[in-house]
Amino acid sequence: MSSALLLPVPLDRAYRLLNHGPVTLVSSAHAGRDDVMAAAWAMPLDFMPPKVVVVIDRSTFTRELVEASGEFVLNIPSSAQAVGVLAAGSGSGREQADKIGACGFERLAATQVGAPRIAGCLAWLECRVLPDVENQRRHDLFIAEVVAAQADAQVFRDGRWHVDDTPGSTAPRTLHYVAGGAFLETGRAIEVGPDRR
Amino acid sequence: MSSALLLPVPLDRAYRLLNHGPVTLVSSAHAGRDDVMAAAWAMPLDFMPPKVVVVIDRSTFTRELVEASGEFVLNIPSSAQAVGVLAAGSGSGREQADKIGACGFERLAATQVGAPRIAGCLAWLECRVLPDVENQRRHDLFIAEVVAAQADAQVFRDGRWHVDDTPGSTAPRTLHYVAGGAFLETGRAIEVGPDRR
Repeated sequence: MSSALLLPVPLDRAYRLLNHGPVTLVSSAHAGRDDVMAAAWAMPLDFMPPKVVVVIDRSTFTRELVEASGEFVLNIPSSAQAVGVLAAGSGSGREQADKIGACGFERLAATQVGAPRIAGCLAWLECRVLPDVENQRRHDLFIAEVVAAQADAQVFRDGRWHVDDTPGSTAPRTLHYVAGGAFLETGRAIEVGPDRR
Repeated sequence: MSSALLLPVPLDRAYRLLNHGPVTLVSSAHAGRDDVMAAAWAMPLDFMPPKVVVVIDRSTFTRELVEASGEFVLNIPSSAQAVGVLAAGSGSGREQADKIGACGFERLAATQVGAPRIAGCLAWLECRVLPDVENQRRHDLFIAEVVAAQADAQVFRDGRWHVDDTPGSTAPRTLHYVAGGAFLETGRAIEVGPDRR
């Protein structure tokens, strides 16, 4: 982690950070409090300007902070952080003075928003909520514009993910949530076609 | 494929088919025509009744068929179908008499909707569109209720995915889209916690 090379991701490639459906951590902050929650229900919505959608339940403390600040970060954790991700998916930040710390995470300042990034993740999408009261009220669905993005160059560079399938490789991988405390790690690469969009 | 045991998935577990972010195929039919397209931008929206969201671009033939019929199937392909999934992600069904066949796919009748299912996939979510003109017009975003779901019992049973990490296992795996004709296969299982939602 300390040796990770974190590079900005061009905004027109930011959707690719989420294309393969990894689980995310939503981090947020407002008025001296911050929070983190796990969200498997996040995906790209548009290419440029890049937009995302994420479901943030109305019962969560994250929801309060996101509504108050209009900002959040979608962090894409490494499989090495699976225990912390599960902790972030349970228990509320409302009852914990420092849920981010309790999950074993450290904060990293974001570049464009007030919400902290979670250190050790493989990529980050810094987001500003686009006002849409109807989707928020009816579906807990937040639409946001990605205003900055970064990734660990070891696994995401030249605008796409790179998976090291060399036997014995210890290169980090992203996580996908199943249920019941079970995750699936991102697996081997399958190349079937020429370059396109 | 011919030996696959396809079992109904209880509706309150249907969201788990999409939780880990696999690429999907959207199949649709109306007035004697049908179509298939690849969609990486699909996710659960609610548990019960189960709802999903999927982005269906306004330029696609699938969009016409879905708007006309109010129905579609989200098919979750196997990594063995990667070539067909890439084909489904390019070229329009409007100019092809039989895009489903051209992608190398066969049709399987659905149980609750008129859209065909794609044979050989690992799971299916049969969906009815919930009217929401604003999200469709502004974001190409369709919200739908899952009215039936099925899965291949080899990989999804007891309400969750099972990955066979035994060396040499040929059990099928789902696919995740990266970009440029590259996919990632679903990888190894990581269990970190007790059973929870």
